[in-house]
Amino acid sequence: MDFDLSEEQRAFAHTAREFAANELAPHAATWDRESIFPREALAKAAALGFCGLYAPERIGGLALPRLDATLVFEELAAADPSTTAFLTIHNMATWMLGTWGSPAVREKWGEAMTRGELLGSYCLTEPDAGSDAGSLKTRAERAADGWVLNGGKAFISGAGATDVLIVMARTGGPGPGGVSAFVVPADAPGVGYGKNEHKMGWHSQPTRTVSFDGVRIPADHLLGEEGEGFRIAMKGLDGGRINIATCSVGAAQGAFDAARRHLQDRRQFGQPLAAFQALQFRLADMATDLVAARQMVRLAASRLDAGSPDASAYCAMAKRFATDAGFNVCNDALQLHGGYGYLGEFPLERLVRDTRVHQILEGTNEIMRVIIARKLLDGGADLR
Amino acid sequence: MDFDLSEEQRAFAHTAREFAANELAPHAATWDRESIFPREALAKAAALGFCGLYAPERIGGLALPRLDATLVFEELAAADPSTTAFLTIHNMATWMLGTWGSPAVREKWGEAMTRGELLGSYCLTEPDAGSDAGSLKTRAERAADGWVLNGGKAFISGAGATDVLIVMARTGGPGPGGVSAFVVPADAPGVGYGKNEHKMGWHSQPTRTVSFDGVRIPADHLLGEEGEGFRIAMKGLDGGRINIATCSVGAAQGAFDAARRHLQDRRQFGQPLAAFQALQFRLADMATDLVAARQMVRLAASRLDAGSPDASAYCAMAKRFATDAGFNVCNDALQLHGGYGYLGEFPLERLVRDTRVHQILEGTNEIMRVIIARKLLDGGADLR
Amino acid sequence: MDFDLSEEQRAFAHTAREFAANELAPHAATWDRESIFPREALAKAAALGFCGLYAPERIGGLALPRLDATLVFEELAAADPSTTAFLTIHNMATWMLGTWGSPAVREKWGEAMTRGELLGSYCLTEPDAGSDAGSLKTRAERAADGWVLNGGKAFISGAGATDVLIVMARTGGPGPGGVSAFVVPADAPGVGYGKNEHKMGWHSQPTRTVSFDGVRIPADHLLGEEGEGFRIAMKGLDGGRINIATCSVGAAQGAFDAARRHLQDRRQFGQPLAAFQALQFRLADMATDLVAARQMVRLAASRLDAGSPDASAYCAMAKRFATDAGFNVCNDALQLHGGYGYLGEFPLERLVRDTRVHQILEGTNEIMRVIIARKLLDGGADLR
Amino acid sequence: MDFDLSEEQRAFAHTAREFAANELAPHAATWDRESIFPREALAKAAALGFCGLYAPERIGGLALPRLDATLVFEELAAADPSTTAFLTIHNMATWMLGTWGSPAVREKWGEAMTRGELLGSYCLTEPDAGSDAGSLKTRAERAADGWVLNGGKAFISGAGATDVLIVMARTGGPGPGGVSAFVVPADAPGVGYGKNEHKMGWHSQPTRTVSFDGVRIPADHLLGEEGEGFRIAMKGLDGGRINIATCSVGAAQGAFDAARRHLQDRRQFGQPLAAFQALQFRLADMATDLVAARQMVRLAASRLDAGSPDASAYCAMAKRFATDAGFNVCNDALQLHGGYGYLGEFPLERLVRDTRVHQILEGTNEIMRVIIARKLLDGGADLR
Repeated sequence: MDFDLSEEQRAFAHTAREFAANELAPHAATWDRESIFPREALAKAAALGFCGLYAPERIGGLALPRLDATLVFEELAAADPSTTAFLTIHNMATWMLGTWGSPAVREKWGEAMTRGELLGSYCLTEPDAGSDAGSLKTRAERAADGWVLNGGKAFISGAGATDVLIVMARTGGPGPGGVSAFVVPADAPGVGYGKNEHKMGWHSQPTRTVSFDGVRIPADHLLGEEGEGFRIAMKGLDGGRINIATCSVGAAQGAFDAARRHLQDRRQFGQPLAAFQALQFRLADMATDLVAARQMVRLAASRLDAGSPDASAYCAMAKRFATDAGFNVCNDALQLHGGYGYLGEFPLERLVRDTRVHQILEGTNEIMRVIIARKLLDGGADLR
Repeated sequence: MDFDLSEEQRAFAHTAREFAANELAPHAATWDRESIFPREALAKAAALGFCGLYAPERIGGLALPRLDATLVFEELAAADPSTTAFLTIHNMATWMLGTWGSPAVREKWGEAMTRGELLGSYCLTEPDAGSDAGSLKTRAERAADGWVLNGGKAFISGAGATDVLIVMARTGGPGPGGVSAFVVPADAPGVGYGKNEHKMGWHSQPTRTVSFDGVRIPADHLLGEEGEGFRIAMKGLDGGRINIATCSVGAAQGAFDAARRHLQDRRQFGQPLAAFQALQFRLADMATDLVAARQMVRLAASRLDAGSPDASAYCAMAKRFATDAGFNVCNDALQLHGGYGYLGEFPLERLVRDTRVHQILEGTNEIMRVIIARKLLDGGADLR
Repeated sequence: MDFDLSEEQRAFAHTAREFAANELAPHAATWDRESIFPREALAKAAALGFCGLYAPERIGGLALPRLDATLVFEELAAADPSTTAFLTIHNMATWMLGTWGSPAVREKWGEAMTRGELLGSYCLTEPDAGSDAGSLKTRAERAADGWVLNGGKAFISGAGATDVLIVMARTGGPGPGGVSAFVVPADAPGVGYGKNEHKMGWHSQPTRTVSFDGVRIPADHLLGEEGEGFRIAMKGLDGGRINIATCSVGAAQGAFDAARRHLQDRRQFGQPLAAFQALQFRLADMATDLVAARQMVRLAASRLDAGSPDASAYCAMAKRFATDAGFNVCNDALQLHGGYGYLGEFPLERLVRDTRVHQILEGTNEIMRVIIARKLLDGGADLR
Repeated sequence: MDFDLSEEQRAFAHTAREFAANELAPHAATWDRESIFPREALAKAAALGFCGLYAPERIGGLALPRLDATLVFEELAAADPSTTAFLTIHNMATWMLGTWGSPAVREKWGEAMTRGELLGSYCLTEPDAGSDAGSLKTRAERAADGWVLNGGKAFISGAGATDVLIVMARTGGPGPGGVSAFVVPADAPGVGYGKNEHKMGWHSQPTRTVSFDGVRIPADHLLGEEGEGFRIAMKGLDGGRINIATCSVGAAQGAFDAARRHLQDRRQFGQPLAAFQALQFRLADMATDLVAARQMVRLAASRLDAGSPDASAYCAMAKRFATDAGFNVCNDALQLHGGYGYLGEFPLERLVRDTRVHQILEGTNEIMRVIIARKLLDGGADLR
């Protein structure tokens, strides 16, 4: 048992922290306010390998363990959780394409995605199937030369600005077993996009509905086997939960650092705020929850890396715990800033808005509890 | 002891609810998104007496008890807490002017304010004196014909869009005893306004810094006596805390109603969300906290109306409890909406953003605890 | 709307407070430690009317509103929640007997119960039907001269030390409609008692199982009509929930008062504990929750007194909120006492142990949420 | 970074689990109810090395890392936190004696302590210096042949039943620098013991005040150097905090396992409790907090083992987090048992009573926050 980062891991984190300080932090407020999708910054991130952190090497990915990827994402999210969250989704899409894609598909998009030249979106959620992903209705029918796709998706991150869509669609009967996964070019005829949704946060990435109206997909654009889509999606979700939990940890660290500085700088009643015991206690609790959240994420990532049979339960626990703790730490940091915390000049209100959705997506935290409880009650998981 | 509203009180609430449904609810999202200060809607509210609910009758106010005013504000806030919160500030300013203003001042502005033709802002907070209001530095020096005002204020609601400023300024030595209150025309020479602050919420009312650069004030624009300003401000704050707590209760009711409807309408896994026990329990806890918060507000208002010596402690308790509960209920309601709660099409994310500042202003909830504890420990308050 | 106690109500509370100080507080620790059921003190309470506070006058009760009864119970519970809780159960049993009992039954037991000469137990819960009261299996079969009772009850407060049992038994088919209520002499042939249970707290009242083995009951010992038992039980529970919630409020007030004194008396690091801001904040939050809990209880009691159709929902909210807040305030008060809070010389650990069961009985707080949610979702309750 | 136990560590834990199942679990309720100090069971534990887990090998200890010791203590505490907590104190005393004791002292007591033939108590706390340990007043004056000890200690675990006392006493001026540590035979002339305190829990170990009235101590009974006592005490406390946090994690695991079984076995409303979603969610949250608490403890232990400069802050975080989580998990498990959780037949109410003191001793959780905040604000700790 060893809780220390290796030298290589520290170097990764250091690189990410520098990148975040130079390329994300100075722009994050503007991207948020003006709803700018920062393709250029993402391309710079790709130069450091951040667009294919755990994608397979055969498409130019770094093939890192998930645990190592969290070190990078955490540092980036401390400056800009919204942009980082999109980056994690792109990483997931890239990893799926690199792992389950046919040679043709990998050749066509793989390296362009790890190089950040093409960006990916992940299309699972539907308007009527939010938490109930297994009931999705988008349908791919076999055609002579491949498949024809009809239906629609909702809440798709990056949609309208990305190039490659990973789409889950029903190719068989009802339930999870009838779902397959496809690669769909974002500009394929018949693909339509809704308006960019007004959201509470995550303004640096567009969110749109995507519609498929008779979209023709070549046979070799199937990922894995027919009927394997839900399994692929679920594998993606385990990692996606770690990613989003990591973004919460990073954001919390950023908020915590800001709050600590503010307590030391701001004076009231003739003393720095840091002199007030009740505020000290709040800061201490924030730090403790932050450390606990980080541990939960790393533990879950290591279980996922090890292929542990209870990895999904640990990912669900990490997602639930870290996204709740992350939001709360950001929200407490806002409060410690008083009125200034509510203003856009400070990062706090943005961090609160951005982390709020982490408690909802990749499976709501309610769904996380369903997953955990099932493993505890039916699966007989031993937590020791 | 009687917990029921009188028929007259029910009628007030009913009128307010109808006004909210017709004049606020349909526009609140737009006002939020486009940062529109709805002067017209405020004028319509004035036609129902809502611009001078507890202002004295001699300036056209209704002179209602604070408890009755909460019934109105609560209904309005269920549709739009931001606009309602501004309205409560205008009510406070109007009440101050009507109560402590000279005949000249009352004549000049009083009825115009209760009729909503002129709007007021309350200028207490300064950049370096947020929670520590007693240390304010804006200075009014005696001049031949009155006073000359220099200094600046921060976080002023409505500033730049209002007509009358109630300004706390130092006319004597340090500490609370050296502060006086003035009425200042918003367009007086030397009054300057900062940019409209980017805020997390409260977009339907502008927030600006206000600067005073040699602003000349006639002698009869002093409110009350010289040196009485802090006392006036504190009396204002007791009521202001009830008002903001009321806005939280109203917003929570609005969010709760939305969540209840959503649980009944939205289906997942083949059932309405309302069939899921964990969500039922959440809704039950939201309702319970909402009812408790409302009771705290009404209890404090009744103590304030009665001039009870522990009214300030009860106002602080109500403000702390109801603004925390209000934010949490809105936030839980957002969560119960899943991804839809995060979108601007639904009121939830707006209610969360709008209520967040209630925990900060009119004295942060940390300052509320200072006030409560002081009363408990030094004042020996008996809570029974 | 009026939040003040009348002079008469204050007098009641004052009498109760004196009684608590003189007759309960000096002995509560001993009764707890030595598991003494204080019949003598209960008899003294009866002399003040406390054994029939809301029992009808025809059996010598005071026929007070429930709201007034809470004023008495609250003061008593501040000194000894365990003994007070038993007293509330006796009051419930007495009220049932006085309300639904036949003339013969009222004559035989009524006045002896309001005079505290005979004590009552309430027998609803069964080992296999804790929260699911409607599924009870104890059976009363018709016999020539009345009924024959077979079955068993669990968790019966006072059992083995009381004189009169109010027993819910099945006289018809399954479900609530098949239940009737009976008065059973505690020493009737065939009534058996289990051992006094080892409990975490509530040591001043015995808790035993009760078994019925062919117990013969005269026909006039039926309460109300045949099949009306569940309805009577549920009416009892509404009041019982207010009672137990009141005991929590009282205990919390006792714990709060102790904590406040301790903060002022105990010195550490050269200062009284009251000088430490984090502890001040804790005390402020305890006071706020205590006040909110008291309001919830009084609101619910007034709804019950008024026969409001949503009284059950308000009683459930009050029970859930006040028993949670009560336990938490006691537990925080223990913490503020440091190591001394853990010792039996101080009342804190006893108050924590005693209030813990309030979250469980008269319907667990989980069942309260079921009741509240049902009213919100099916009943469409408007909380305003 | 590696979150898995080694095979050797698993073997340790397994041995401890078996010991707990055979030697602690069957007796824990009796020891609690009858206040039995189980010397025999402790001797059996010694046979497995559990009385000197991290004591140096030169006195027969296993010299294990703290992390490894937590694996043992956690398993034992799942069955009996009170007895295990005493065992951890004995381990601390033994480690101190083995580490800082003179050859004479080590020879006289060391091996007897690791063999469990002699037991140790740790005497730091005084009645007026609970959290403020640096202000202790017990005084050791130099005499011809050693020292003379006068003063008194409070809350001493095991006192009256143990053989060796590790005593912190003032040998110099005020403040931490004037404190030295001594080994004192428990039966030395002048050592007196108070009555066994009535406590909420921890009944299987006596707690007494200890008085020193002219107790003569040989010169070689000094531990370390004169004036080094506070430093030794603080090093002890870091480990002591991990130990007590570990006991909380263990107790929580025991309570969690019981709750899970109960949900699966107990039926209400025609279904096992495990079928109710709200209870599933509670169980999921308990599991998540338990896992997080365990991680915090292991992280802190590994920092302490590594001699990290921020080890004290991590130990304080682990102690605060794990003792709060541990109590809450036990308390939730009690609630999930309904009325049965309140009875002594089930372990839940005992686990709640036993873990309650963990939030208080080895430095209250309030003092933990002081330590954490100081490191964050003055020490500039980087939590990453």
